[in-house]
Amino acid sequence: MIDRLISSIEDKQNPTVVGLDPTYEMIPTFIKEQCLEQWGNSPKAVSEMFFTFNKMIIDEIYDLIPAVKPQIAMYEKYGLEGLRAYFETTQYCKSKGLIIIGDVKRGDIASTAAAYAGHIAGVDIEGEYFDLWNEDAITVNPYLGYDGIEPFLGACKQFDKGLFILVKTSNPSSCEIQDLKLDNKHIYNYVADLVSKWGENLIGEYGYSNIGAVVGATYREQGEELRSLMPHTFFLVPGYGAQGGKASDLKGYFDKDGRGAIINSSRGIISAYKTKNIQEKDFAKVAREAVIEMKNDLKG
Amino acid sequence: MIDRLISSIEDKQNPTVVGLDPTYEMIPTFIKEQCLEQWGNSPKAVSEMFFTFNKMIIDEIYDLIPAVKPQIAMYEKYGLEGLRAYFETTQYCKSKGLIIIGDVKRGDIASTAAAYAGHIAGVDIEGEYFDLWNEDAITVNPYLGYDGIEPFLGACKQFDKGLFILVKTSNPSSCEIQDLKLDNKHIYNYVADLVSKWGENLIGEYGYSNIGAVVGATYREQGEELRSLMPHTFFLVPGYGAQGGKASDLKGYFDKDGRGAIINSSRGIISAYKTKNIQEKDFAKVAREAVIEMKNDLKG
Repeated sequence: MIDRLISSIEDKQNPTVVGLDPTYEMIPTFIKEQCLEQWGNSPKAVSEMFFTFNKMIIDEIYDLIPAVKPQIAMYEKYGLEGLRAYFETTQYCKSKGLIIIGDVKRGDIASTAAAYAGHIAGVDIEGEYFDLWNEDAITVNPYLGYDGIEPFLGACKQFDKGLFILVKTSNPSSCEIQDLKLDNKHIYNYVADLVSKWGENLIGEYGYSNIGAVVGATYREQGEELRSLMPHTFFLVPGYGAQGGKASDLKGYFDKDGRGAIINSSRGIISAYKTKNIQEKDFAKVAREAVIEMKNDLKG
Repeated sequence: MIDRLISSIEDKQNPTVVGLDPTYEMIPTFIKEQCLEQWGNSPKAVSEMFFTFNKMIIDEIYDLIPAVKPQIAMYEKYGLEGLRAYFETTQYCKSKGLIIIGDVKRGDIASTAAAYAGHIAGVDIEGEYFDLWNEDAITVNPYLGYDGIEPFLGACKQFDKGLFILVKTSNPSSCEIQDLKLDNKHIYNYVADLVSKWGENLIGEYGYSNIGAVVGATYREQGEELRSLMPHTFFLVPGYGAQGGKASDLKGYFDKDGRGAIINSSRGIISAYKTKNIQEKDFAKVAREAVIEMKNDLKG
Protein backbone atom coordinates (compact mmCIF):
# COMPACT_ATOMS: atom_id res chain seq x y z
CA MET A 1 0.00 0.00 0.00
CA ILE A 2 2.54 2.57 1.16
CA ASP A 3 4.80 2.12 -1.87
CA ARG A 4 1.84 2.50 -4.22
CA LEU A 5 0.73 5.58 -2.32
CA ILE A 6 4.16 7.23 -2.38
CA SER A 7 4.73 6.47 -6.05
CA SER A 8 1.29 7.84 -6.93
CA ILE A 9 2.02 11.02 -4.93
CA GLU A 10 5.23 11.41 -6.93
CA ASP A 11 3.58 10.68 -10.28
CA LYS A 12 0.94 13.30 -9.64
CA GLN A 13 3.30 15.60 -7.75
CA ASN A 14 0.60 16.09 -5.17
CA PRO A 15 0.61 14.91 -1.53
CA THR A 16 -3.12 15.51 -1.19
CA VAL A 17 -5.89 13.17 -0.16
CA VAL A 18 -9.41 14.41 -0.71
CA GLY A 19 -11.94 13.67 2.01
CA LEU A 20 -15.20 12.49 0.47
CA ASP A 21 -17.35 13.50 3.44
CA PRO A 22 -20.68 14.65 2.04
CA THR A 23 -23.37 16.16 4.22
CA TYR A 24 -26.99 16.77 3.29
CA GLU A 25 -26.41 20.53 3.48
CA MET A 26 -23.55 20.32 1.02
CA ILE A 27 -25.48 18.74 -1.85
CA PRO A 28 -26.37 21.15 -4.67
CA THR A 29 -30.11 21.74 -5.01
CA PHE A 30 -30.39 20.29 -8.51
CA ILE A 31 -29.05 16.93 -7.29
CA LYS A 32 -31.13 17.04 -4.13
CA GLU A 33 -34.38 17.78 -5.96
CA GLN A 34 -33.82 15.12 -8.56
CA CYS A 35 -33.19 12.44 -5.91
CA LEU A 36 -36.06 13.50 -3.65
CA GLU A 37 -38.39 13.45 -6.63
CA GLN A 38 -37.34 9.97 -7.62
CA TRP A 39 -37.00 8.39 -4.15
CA GLY A 40 -39.10 10.56 -1.84
CA ASN A 41 -37.89 11.80 1.56
CA SER A 42 -35.90 8.68 2.29
CA PRO A 43 -32.42 7.36 3.14
CA LYS A 44 -32.37 5.92 -0.38
CA ALA A 45 -32.71 9.44 -1.80
CA VAL A 46 -29.81 10.68 0.36
CA SER A 47 -27.70 7.70 -0.65
CA GLU A 48 -28.28 8.53 -4.33
CA MET A 49 -27.48 12.19 -3.66
CA PHE A 50 -24.19 11.35 -1.94
CA PHE A 51 -23.04 8.98 -4.66
CA THR A 52 -24.01 11.33 -7.48
CA PHE A 53 -22.25 14.21 -5.73
CA ASN A 54 -19.09 12.17 -5.10
CA LYS A 55 -19.03 10.74 -8.60
CA MET A 56 -19.24 14.15 -10.25
CA ILE A 57 -16.39 15.40 -8.07
CA ILE A 58 -14.24 12.32 -8.66
CA ASP A 59 -14.70 12.65 -12.42
CA GLU A 60 -13.27 16.17 -12.18
CA ILE A 61 -10.34 15.49 -9.86
CA TYR A 62 -9.16 11.88 -10.13
CA ASP A 63 -6.32 12.75 -12.51
CA LEU A 64 -4.89 15.25 -10.01
CA ILE A 65 -4.83 13.27 -6.78
CA PRO A 66 -3.32 9.99 -5.57
CA ALA A 67 -5.94 9.11 -2.98
CA VAL A 68 -9.34 9.72 -1.43
CA LYS A 69 -10.43 9.37 2.18
CA PRO A 70 -14.17 8.82 2.52
CA GLN A 71 -15.34 9.36 6.13
CA ILE A 72 -17.70 6.44 6.78
CA ALA A 73 -19.62 8.28 9.53
CA MET A 74 -21.20 10.60 6.98
CA TYR A 75 -22.73 7.59 5.24
CA GLU A 76 -23.41 5.47 8.34
CA LYS A 77 -25.65 8.26 9.62
CA TYR A 78 -28.10 7.27 6.89
CA GLY A 79 -28.12 3.59 7.80
CA LEU A 80 -27.74 0.78 5.29
CA GLU A 81 -28.67 2.97 2.34
CA GLY A 82 -26.09 5.52 3.39
CA LEU A 83 -23.45 2.82 3.57
CA ARG A 84 -24.43 1.69 0.10
CA ALA A 85 -23.28 5.12 -1.12
CA TYR A 86 -20.00 4.59 0.75
CA PHE A 87 -19.50 1.26 -0.99
CA GLU A 88 -20.43 2.65 -4.41
CA THR A 89 -18.04 5.55 -3.83
CA THR A 90 -15.09 3.32 -2.92
CA GLN A 91 -15.91 1.06 -5.86
CA TYR A 92 -15.99 3.99 -8.25
CA CYS A 93 -12.75 5.47 -6.88
CA LYS A 94 -11.09 2.09 -7.28
CA SER A 95 -12.17 1.97 -10.93
CA LYS A 96 -10.42 5.33 -11.36
CA GLY A 97 -7.17 3.98 -9.95
CA LEU A 98 -7.31 5.98 -6.73
CA ILE A 99 -5.96 4.68 -3.42
CA ILE A 100 -8.76 4.51 -0.89
CA ILE A 101 -8.18 5.31 2.76
CA GLY A 102 -11.35 4.36 4.60
CA ASP A 103 -11.66 6.78 7.50
CA VAL A 104 -13.42 4.34 9.82
CA LYS A 105 -11.45 4.79 13.09
CA ARG A 106 -12.38 1.30 14.26
CA GLY A 107 -10.80 -0.24 17.32
CA ASP A 108 -11.77 -3.14 19.55
CA ILE A 109 -10.42 -6.18 21.39
CA ALA A 110 -8.67 -8.99 19.53
CA SER A 111 -11.51 -11.18 18.27
CA THR A 112 -13.57 -8.15 17.31
CA ALA A 113 -10.64 -6.37 15.70
CA ALA A 114 -10.21 -9.50 13.59
CA ALA A 115 -13.75 -8.96 12.30
CA TYR A 116 -13.11 -5.27 11.58
CA ALA A 117 -9.98 -6.34 9.71
CA GLY A 118 -12.44 -7.57 7.07
CA HIS A 119 -12.41 -3.94 5.87
CA ILE A 120 -8.96 -4.54 4.40
CA ALA A 121 -8.73 -8.34 4.38
CA GLY A 122 -12.04 -9.09 2.73
CA VAL A 123 -13.83 -12.32 3.64
CA ASP A 124 -13.67 -15.91 2.61
CA ILE A 125 -17.00 -17.67 2.28
CA GLU A 126 -16.61 -21.38 1.59
CA GLY A 127 -13.47 -20.75 -0.43
CA GLU A 128 -14.77 -17.75 -2.36
CA TYR A 129 -13.12 -14.39 -1.68
CA PHE A 130 -15.06 -11.13 -1.40
CA ASP A 131 -13.62 -7.62 -1.04
CA LEU A 132 -16.66 -5.85 0.37
CA TRP A 133 -15.30 -2.39 1.24
CA ASN A 134 -12.68 -1.68 -1.48
CA GLU A 135 -10.31 0.01 0.98
CA ASP A 136 -6.52 0.04 0.57
CA ALA A 137 -6.00 1.36 4.09
CA ILE A 138 -8.14 2.34 7.06
CA THR A 139 -7.76 4.52 10.13
CA VAL A 140 -7.82 2.77 13.51
CA ASN A 141 -7.95 3.81 17.18
CA PRO A 142 -5.16 2.60 19.50
CA TYR A 143 -6.90 3.00 22.89
CA LEU A 144 -7.29 -0.76 23.38
CA GLY A 145 -3.62 -1.56 22.80
CA TYR A 146 -1.77 -4.19 20.77
CA ASP A 147 -4.26 -7.05 20.76
CA GLY A 148 -6.76 -4.68 19.13
CA ILE A 149 -4.19 -3.84 16.42
CA GLU A 150 -2.55 -7.18 15.78
CA PRO A 151 -5.32 -8.69 13.58
CA PHE A 152 -5.05 -5.66 11.28
CA LEU A 153 -1.28 -6.14 10.95
CA GLY A 154 -1.77 -9.65 9.65
CA ALA A 155 -4.22 -8.35 7.04
CA CYS A 156 -1.79 -5.59 6.03
CA LYS A 157 0.97 -8.12 5.51
CA GLN A 158 -1.11 -10.68 3.67
CA PHE A 159 -2.94 -8.29 1.35
CA ASP A 160 -0.46 -5.38 1.14
CA LYS A 161 -2.90 -3.03 2.83
CA GLY A 162 -2.29 -0.20 5.29
CA LEU A 163 -3.35 1.37 8.55
CA PHE A 164 -3.23 4.91 9.85
CA ILE A 165 -3.37 4.75 13.63
CA LEU A 166 -4.55 7.79 15.59
CA VAL A 167 -1.59 9.38 17.35
CA LYS A 168 -2.35 13.10 17.63
CA THR A 169 -5.69 14.13 16.17
CA SER A 170 -6.49 17.55 14.72
CA ASN A 171 -9.43 18.52 16.94
CA PRO A 172 -9.31 21.06 19.81
CA SER A 173 -10.06 18.47 22.54
CA SER A 174 -7.34 16.10 21.36
CA CYS A 175 -5.24 17.47 24.22
CA GLU A 176 -7.54 16.07 26.93
CA ILE A 177 -6.18 12.54 26.76
CA GLN A 178 -3.49 12.58 24.07
CA ASP A 179 -1.48 15.38 25.71
CA LEU A 180 -1.48 14.00 29.25
CA LYS A 181 2.14 13.87 30.32
CA LEU A 182 4.02 11.26 32.28
CA ASP A 183 7.76 11.13 32.88
CA ASN A 184 8.16 14.08 30.56
CA LYS A 185 6.44 12.22 27.73
CA HIS A 186 2.95 12.77 26.35
CA ILE A 187 0.48 9.99 25.75
CA TYR A 188 0.72 10.68 22.02
CA ASN A 189 4.47 10.00 22.29
CA TYR A 190 3.79 6.65 23.93
CA VAL A 191 1.31 5.85 21.18
CA ALA A 192 3.85 7.01 18.59
CA ASP A 193 6.40 4.55 19.99
CA LEU A 194 3.84 1.76 19.83
CA VAL A 195 2.87 2.62 16.26
CA SER A 196 6.53 2.65 15.16
CA LYS A 197 7.07 -0.71 16.78
CA TRP A 198 3.89 -2.23 15.34
CA GLY A 199 4.97 -1.15 11.87
CA GLU A 200 8.61 -2.19 11.89
CA ASN A 201 8.10 -5.43 9.96
CA LEU A 202 6.08 -3.81 7.21
CA ILE A 203 8.52 -1.26 5.79
CA GLY A 204 8.49 -0.80 2.03
CA GLU A 205 11.03 0.31 -0.54
CA TYR A 206 10.81 4.02 0.27
CA GLY A 207 11.60 3.32 3.92
CA TYR A 208 8.04 3.84 5.12
CA SER A 209 5.82 1.28 6.78
CA ASN A 210 2.34 0.16 5.76
CA ILE A 211 1.46 1.12 9.34
CA GLY A 212 1.11 4.89 9.34
CA ALA A 213 -0.10 7.48 11.83
CA VAL A 214 -2.78 10.15 11.93
CA VAL A 215 -1.13 13.42 12.96
CA GLY A 216 -3.26 16.56 12.82
CA ALA A 217 -2.20 19.62 10.81
CA THR A 218 -3.37 21.87 13.61
CA TYR A 219 -0.51 21.08 16.01
CA ARG A 220 2.65 22.05 14.16
CA GLU A 221 5.15 21.52 16.95
CA GLN A 222 3.86 18.09 17.77
CA GLY A 223 3.83 17.20 14.07
CA GLU A 224 7.49 18.15 13.69
CA GLU A 225 8.42 16.35 16.89
CA LEU A 226 6.64 13.19 15.72
CA ARG A 227 8.26 13.37 12.28
CA SER A 228 11.70 13.16 13.85
CA LEU A 229 10.64 10.45 16.33
CA MET A 230 8.98 8.25 13.69
CA PRO A 231 11.29 8.11 10.67
CA HIS A 232 9.57 5.08 9.13
CA THR A 233 5.99 6.13 9.77
CA PHE A 234 3.99 7.82 7.04
CA PHE A 235 1.58 10.52 8.25
CA LEU A 236 -2.01 11.03 7.26
CA VAL A 237 -2.58 14.67 8.14
CA PRO A 238 -6.12 15.95 8.63
CA GLY A 239 -6.98 19.49 9.66
CA TYR A 240 -5.66 21.49 6.69
CA GLY A 241 -8.00 24.20 5.46
CA ALA A 242 -11.43 24.21 7.07
CA GLN A 243 -10.00 23.18 10.47
CA GLY A 244 -7.33 25.87 10.38
CA GLY A 245 -4.10 24.07 9.39
CA LYS A 246 -1.93 26.05 6.95
CA ALA A 247 0.56 24.88 4.33
CA SER A 248 3.32 26.93 5.98
CA ASP A 249 2.84 24.88 9.16
CA LEU A 250 3.29 21.58 7.38
CA LYS A 251 6.87 21.65 6.16
CA GLY A 252 8.08 19.77 9.21
CA TYR A 253 5.63 16.91 8.59
CA PHE A 254 7.66 15.88 5.52
CA ASP A 255 11.14 14.36 5.42
CA LYS A 256 14.15 15.91 3.66
CA ASP A 257 13.07 14.29 0.36
CA GLY A 258 9.62 15.83 0.63
CA ARG A 259 8.06 12.48 1.45
CA GLY A 260 6.44 11.14 4.59
CA ALA A 261 3.02 12.76 4.67
CA ILE A 262 -0.24 13.12 2.81
CA ILE A 263 -2.46 16.07 3.63
CA ASN A 264 -6.20 15.74 3.76
CA SER A 265 -8.77 18.33 2.85
CA SER A 266 -12.47 17.55 2.84
CA ARG A 267 -14.88 20.48 3.02
CA GLY A 268 -12.24 22.80 1.58
CA ILE A 269 -12.42 20.83 -1.67
CA ILE A 270 -15.82 19.21 -1.97
CA SER A 271 -17.88 22.15 -0.80
CA ALA A 272 -15.56 24.85 -2.10
CA TYR A 273 -18.42 26.12 -4.28
CA LYS A 274 -20.28 27.16 -1.11
CA THR A 275 -17.53 29.19 0.45
CA LYS A 276 -16.69 30.78 -2.88
CA ASN A 277 -20.29 31.63 -3.60
CA ILE A 278 -20.25 30.06 -7.03
CA GLN A 279 -23.22 28.64 -8.95
CA GLU A 280 -24.21 25.18 -7.78
CA LYS A 281 -24.02 23.57 -11.19
CA ASP A 282 -20.29 24.29 -11.25
CA PHE A 283 -19.59 22.63 -7.89
CA ALA A 284 -17.36 19.88 -9.30
CA LYS A 285 -15.29 22.28 -11.40
CA VAL A 286 -14.79 24.43 -8.32
CA ALA A 287 -13.61 21.33 -6.48
CA ARG A 288 -11.04 20.82 -9.22
CA GLU A 289 -9.84 24.40 -8.86
CA ALA A 290 -9.61 23.92 -5.10
CA VAL A 291 -7.46 20.81 -5.59
CA ILE A 292 -5.10 22.74 -7.88
CA GLU A 293 -4.97 25.62 -5.41
CA MET A 294 -4.16 23.25 -2.57
CA LYS A 295 -1.49 21.51 -4.63
CA ASN A 296 0.18 24.84 -5.35
CA ASP A 297 -0.20 25.94 -1.75
CA LEU A 298 1.52 22.77 -0.51
CA LYS A 299 4.28 23.12 -3.11
CA GLY A 300 5.11 26.49 -1.67
CA MET B 1 -32.36 4.90 28.73
CA ILE B 2 -30.64 4.21 32.04
CA ASP B 3 -33.87 4.24 34.05
CA ARG B 4 -35.50 1.85 31.59
CA LEU B 5 -32.44 -0.39 31.73
CA ILE B 6 -32.31 -0.46 35.53
CA SER B 7 -36.02 -1.10 35.90
CA SER B 8 -35.87 -3.90 33.34
CA ILE B 9 -32.91 -5.45 35.20
CA GLU B 10 -35.01 -5.36 38.37
CA ASP B 11 -38.13 -6.73 36.70
CA LYS B 12 -36.20 -9.65 35.31
CA GLN B 13 -33.91 -9.92 38.33
CA ASN B 14 -31.02 -10.32 35.95
CA PRO B 15 -28.14 -7.86 35.35
CA THR B 16 -27.12 -9.67 32.17
CA VAL B 17 -26.71 -8.36 28.65
CA VAL B 18 -26.29 -10.95 25.94
CA GLY B 19 -23.75 -10.22 23.23
CA LEU B 20 -25.16 -11.11 19.83
CA ASP B 21 -21.80 -11.57 18.16
CA PRO B 22 -22.21 -14.37 15.62
CA THR B 23 -19.30 -15.79 13.68
CA TYR B 24 -19.44 -18.05 10.64
CA GLU B 25 -17.91 -20.88 12.68
CA MET B 26 -20.60 -20.59 15.32
CA ILE B 27 -23.57 -21.16 13.01
CA PRO B 28 -25.12 -24.65 13.29
CA THR B 29 -24.72 -26.72 10.12
CA PHE B 30 -28.44 -27.01 9.42
CA ILE B 31 -28.80 -23.21 9.25
CA LYS B 32 -25.59 -22.85 7.25
CA GLU B 33 -26.56 -25.43 4.66
CA GLN B 34 -30.03 -24.06 4.21
CA CYS B 35 -28.72 -20.52 3.60
CA LEU B 36 -25.87 -21.59 1.31
CA GLU B 37 -28.32 -23.63 -0.73
CA GLN B 38 -30.69 -20.73 -1.11
CA TRP B 39 -28.16 -17.89 -1.58
CA GLY B 40 -24.95 -19.57 -2.73
CA ASN B 41 -21.50 -18.78 -1.27
CA SER B 42 -22.29 -15.12 -0.72
CA PRO B 43 -22.48 -12.36 1.90
CA LYS B 44 -26.25 -12.55 1.50
CA ALA B 45 -26.15 -16.18 2.67
CA VAL B 46 -24.09 -15.23 5.73
CA SER B 47 -26.43 -12.36 6.50
CA GLU B 48 -29.39 -14.75 6.46
CA MET B 49 -27.47 -17.21 8.64
CA PHE B 50 -26.66 -14.57 11.23
CA PHE B 51 -30.20 -13.25 11.44
CA THR B 52 -31.75 -16.73 11.61
CA PHE B 53 -29.28 -17.73 14.31
CA ASN B 54 -29.89 -14.56 16.35
CA LYS B 55 -33.67 -14.76 15.98
CA MET B 56 -33.84 -18.34 17.22
CA ILE B 57 -31.73 -17.41 20.25
CA ILE B 58 -33.72 -14.27 21.00
CA ASP B 59 -36.97 -16.23 20.84
CA GLU B 60 -35.61 -18.52 23.56
CA ILE B 61 -34.12 -15.90 25.89
CA TYR B 62 -35.90 -12.55 25.52
CA ASP B 63 -38.11 -13.13 28.56
CA LEU B 64 -35.06 -13.66 30.79
CA ILE B 65 -32.86 -10.69 29.92
CA PRO B 66 -33.19 -6.91 29.92
CA ALA B 67 -30.82 -6.13 27.08
CA VAL B 68 -28.74 -7.31 24.15
CA LYS B 69 -25.41 -6.01 22.87
CA PRO B 70 -24.83 -6.83 19.21
CA GLN B 71 -21.19 -6.28 18.21
CA ILE B 72 -21.39 -4.49 14.86
CA ALA B 73 -17.92 -5.65 13.73
CA MET B 74 -19.17 -9.20 13.31
CA TYR B 75 -21.71 -7.98 10.78
CA GLU B 76 -19.59 -5.23 9.18
CA LYS B 77 -17.06 -7.90 8.21
CA TYR B 78 -19.63 -9.11 5.67
CA GLY B 79 -20.21 -5.69 4.15
CA LEU B 80 -23.62 -4.22 3.45
CA GLU B 81 -25.36 -7.59 3.59
CA GLY B 82 -23.77 -8.28 6.95
CA LEU B 83 -24.97 -4.96 8.27
CA ARG B 84 -28.45 -5.79 7.05
CA ALA B 85 -28.40 -8.70 9.53
CA TYR B 86 -27.32 -6.24 12.26
CA PHE B 87 -30.26 -4.00 11.43
CA GLU B 88 -32.72 -6.88 11.28
CA THR B 89 -31.39 -8.14 14.60
CA THR B 90 -31.81 -4.80 16.37
CA GLN B 91 -35.24 -4.41 14.83
CA TYR B 92 -36.31 -7.85 16.03
CA CYS B 93 -34.91 -7.27 19.53
CA LYS B 94 -36.77 -3.99 19.70
CA SER B 95 -40.02 -5.77 18.81
CA LYS B 96 -39.35 -8.08 21.78
CA GLY B 97 -39.00 -5.14 24.17
CA LEU B 98 -35.27 -5.56 24.71
CA ILE B 99 -32.94 -2.65 25.29
CA ILE B 100 -30.31 -2.53 22.57
CA ILE B 101 -26.73 -1.53 23.27
CA GLY B 102 -25.01 -1.21 19.92
CA ASP B 103 -21.38 -2.16 20.48
CA VAL B 104 -19.97 0.13 17.81
CA LYS B 105 -17.06 1.83 19.67
CA ARG B 106 -17.22 4.83 17.38
CA GLY B 107 -15.20 7.94 18.08
CA ASP B 108 -14.14 10.88 15.94
CA ILE B 109 -13.79 14.67 15.87
CA ALA B 110 -16.78 16.93 16.42
CA SER B 111 -18.41 17.16 12.97
CA THR B 112 -17.86 13.47 12.36
CA ALA B 113 -19.04 12.46 15.83
CA ALA B 114 -22.22 14.38 15.03
CA ALA B 115 -22.74 12.06 12.07
CA TYR B 116 -22.07 8.95 14.17
CA ALA B 117 -24.60 10.28 16.69
CA GLY B 118 -27.15 9.29 14.03
CA HIS B 119 -26.87 5.81 15.57
CA ILE B 120 -28.90 7.03 18.53
CA ALA B 121 -30.40 10.27 17.23
CA GLY B 122 -31.76 8.96 13.95
CA VAL B 123 -31.93 11.33 11.00
CA ASP B 124 -34.26 13.97 9.73
CA ILE B 125 -34.81 14.02 5.97
CA GLU B 126 -36.91 16.97 4.88
CA GLY B 127 -38.93 16.86 8.10
CA GLU B 128 -39.38 13.08 8.19
CA TYR B 129 -37.68 11.20 11.02
CA PHE B 130 -35.92 7.86 10.54
CA ASP B 131 -34.43 5.64 13.26
CA LEU B 132 -32.08 3.56 11.12
CA TRP B 133 -30.15 1.55 13.73
CA ASN B 134 -32.71 0.86 16.52
CA GLU B 135 -30.13 1.36 19.26
CA ASP B 136 -30.96 2.62 22.77
CA ALA B 137 -27.32 3.14 23.61
CA ILE B 138 -23.95 2.70 21.94
CA THR B 139 -20.36 2.26 23.05
CA VAL B 140 -17.92 5.05 22.16
CA ASN B 141 -14.15 5.61 22.32
CA PRO B 142 -12.85 8.62 24.30
CA TYR B 143 -9.38 8.98 22.76
CA LEU B 144 -10.32 12.16 20.86
CA GLY B 145 -11.64 14.00 23.92
CA TYR B 146 -14.73 16.07 24.62
CA ASP B 147 -15.50 17.49 21.19
CA GLY B 148 -15.77 13.92 19.93
CA ILE B 149 -18.26 13.11 22.70
CA GLU B 150 -20.33 16.26 22.89
CA PRO B 151 -22.56 15.57 19.83
CA PHE B 152 -23.54 12.23 21.38
CA LEU B 153 -24.51 13.93 24.67
CA GLY B 154 -26.99 16.14 22.85
CA ALA B 155 -28.56 13.08 21.24
CA CYS B 156 -28.74 11.31 24.61
CA LYS B 157 -30.54 14.25 26.14
CA GLN B 158 -32.96 14.85 23.28
CA PHE B 159 -33.92 11.22 22.65
CA ASP B 160 -33.29 9.68 26.11
CA LYS B 161 -30.54 7.46 24.75
CA GLY B 162 -27.30 6.34 26.35
CA LEU B 163 -23.57 5.94 25.89
CA PHE B 164 -21.06 3.56 27.38
CA ILE B 165 -17.64 5.15 27.03
CA LEU B 166 -14.52 2.95 27.10
CA VAL B 167 -12.69 3.47 30.39
CA LYS B 168 -10.92 0.20 31.18
CA THR B 169 -11.42 -2.52 28.60
CA SER B 170 -11.33 -6.25 29.28
CA ASN B 171 -8.55 -7.29 26.90
CA PRO B 172 -4.97 -8.21 27.92
CA SER B 173 -3.38 -5.24 26.09
CA SER B 174 -5.72 -2.70 27.68
CA CYS B 175 -2.84 -1.88 30.04
CA GLU B 176 -0.62 -0.52 27.25
CA ILE B 177 -2.28 2.88 27.10
CA GLN B 178 -5.07 2.80 29.67
CA ASP B 179 -2.75 1.90 32.58
CA LEU B 180 -0.05 4.47 31.88
CA LYS B 181 0.41 6.39 35.10
CA LEU B 182 0.97 10.07 35.71
CA ASP B 183 0.97 11.86 39.06
CA ASN B 184 -0.08 8.60 40.70
CA LYS B 185 -3.15 8.36 38.49
CA HIS B 186 -3.74 6.03 35.56
CA ILE B 187 -5.04 7.15 32.19
CA TYR B 188 -8.22 5.18 32.83
CA ASN B 189 -8.72 7.28 35.99
CA TYR B 190 -8.42 10.45 33.95
CA VAL B 191 -10.91 9.09 31.46
CA ALA B 192 -13.17 8.03 34.36
CA ASP B 193 -13.17 11.62 35.65
CA LEU B 194 -14.05 12.91 32.19
CA VAL B 195 -16.85 10.38 31.78
CA SER B 196 -18.32 11.31 35.19
CA LYS B 197 -18.20 14.97 34.26
CA TRP B 198 -19.69 14.45 30.80
CA GLY B 199 -22.61 12.56 32.36
CA GLU B 200 -23.44 14.83 35.27
CA ASN B 201 -26.37 16.54 33.58
CA LEU B 202 -28.01 13.31 32.49
CA ILE B 203 -28.65 11.55 35.79
CA GLY B 204 -31.91 9.64 36.09
CA GLU B 205 -34.16 8.68 38.97
CA TYR B 206 -31.99 5.82 40.25
CA GLY B 207 -29.01 8.16 40.54
CA TYR B 208 -27.25 6.85 37.43
CA SER B 209 -26.42 8.80 34.31
CA ASN B 210 -27.32 8.00 30.72
CA ILE B 211 -23.57 8.30 30.16
CA GLY B 212 -22.08 5.02 31.36
CA ALA B 213 -18.66 3.41 31.20
CA VAL B 214 -17.21 0.21 29.80
CA VAL B 215 -15.23 -1.47 32.59
CA GLY B 216 -13.88 -4.95 31.93
CA ALA B 217 -14.68 -7.91 34.20
CA THR B 218 -11.09 -9.11 33.91
CA TYR B 219 -9.59 -6.38 36.12
CA ARG B 220 -11.32 -6.75 39.49
CA GLU B 221 -9.29 -4.20 41.46
CA GLN B 222 -9.69 -1.51 38.84
CA GLY B 223 -13.40 -2.28 38.61
CA GLU B 224 -13.86 -1.81 42.35
CA GLU B 225 -11.76 1.33 42.36
CA LEU B 226 -13.79 2.81 39.50
CA ARG B 227 -17.08 1.88 41.21
CA SER B 228 -16.16 4.02 44.19
CA LEU B 229 -14.80 6.86 42.06
CA MET B 230 -17.85 6.99 39.74
CA PRO B 231 -20.96 6.78 41.92
CA HIS B 232 -23.30 8.03 39.17
CA THR B 233 -21.85 6.05 36.30
CA PHE B 234 -23.43 2.78 35.27
CA PHE B 235 -20.98 0.09 34.09
CA LEU B 236 -21.24 -2.11 31.04
CA VAL B 237 -18.97 -5.00 31.96
CA PRO B 238 -17.56 -7.23 29.20
CA GLY B 239 -15.17 -10.09 29.81
CA TYR B 240 -17.29 -12.44 31.94
CA GLY B 241 -17.07 -16.11 30.94
CA ALA B 242 -15.15 -16.77 27.74
CA GLN B 243 -12.61 -13.99 28.50
CA GLY B 244 -12.02 -15.26 32.03
CA GLY B 245 -14.05 -12.93 34.30
CA LYS B 246 -15.79 -14.74 37.19
CA ALA B 247 -18.95 -13.83 39.11
CA SER B 248 -17.02 -13.82 42.38
CA ASP B 249 -14.84 -11.02 40.97
CA LEU B 250 -17.78 -8.80 40.15
CA LYS B 251 -19.34 -8.00 43.51
CA GLY B 252 -17.42 -4.74 43.74
CA TYR B 253 -18.76 -3.55 40.37
CA PHE B 254 -22.22 -3.14 41.93
CA ASP B 255 -23.36 -0.60 44.51
CA LYS B 256 -24.78 -1.45 47.94
CA ASP B 257 -28.26 -1.82 46.43
CA GLY B 258 -26.99 -4.33 43.89
CA ARG B 259 -27.28 -1.79 41.07
CA GLY B 260 -24.74 -0.04 38.92
CA ALA B 261 -23.60 -2.66 36.44
CA ILE B 262 -24.75 -4.96 33.68
CA ILE B 263 -22.58 -7.94 32.82
CA ASN B 264 -22.09 -9.04 29.24
CA SER B 265 -21.60 -12.54 27.98
CA SER B 266 -21.43 -13.32 24.27
CA ARG B 267 -19.82 -16.61 23.21
CA GLY B 268 -20.60 -18.12 26.64
CA ILE B 269 -24.30 -17.85 25.80
CA ILE B 270 -24.76 -17.92 22.05
CA SER B 271 -22.29 -20.68 21.31
CA ALA B 272 -22.76 -22.57 24.58
CA TYR B 273 -23.90 -25.59 22.56
CA LYS B 274 -20.37 -25.92 21.15
CA THR B 275 -18.54 -25.92 24.44
CA LYS B 276 -21.10 -28.25 25.95
CA ASN B 277 -20.96 -30.65 23.03
CA ILE B 278 -24.70 -30.69 22.57
CA GLN B 279 -26.61 -31.40 19.35
CA GLU B 280 -26.73 -28.43 17.02
CA LYS B 281 -30.49 -28.41 16.66
CA ASP B 282 -30.76 -27.57 20.38
CA PHE B 283 -28.40 -24.58 20.21
CA ALA B 284 -31.02 -22.01 21.20
CA LYS B 285 -32.29 -24.06 24.15
CA VAL B 286 -28.73 -24.42 25.34
CA ALA B 287 -28.35 -20.65 25.10
CA ARG B 288 -31.41 -20.34 27.36
CA GLU B 289 -29.86 -22.73 29.87
CA ALA B 290 -26.64 -20.73 29.75
CA VAL B 291 -28.55 -17.51 30.48
CA ILE B 292 -30.22 -19.13 33.51
CA GLU B 293 -26.89 -20.49 34.70
CA MET B 294 -25.29 -17.06 34.38
CA LYS B 295 -28.19 -15.41 36.20
CA ASN B 296 -27.80 -17.85 39.09
CA ASP B 297 -24.03 -17.46 39.05
CA LEU B 298 -24.32 -13.67 39.31
CA LYS B 299 -26.95 -13.96 42.07
CA GLY B 300 -24.42 -15.89 44.13
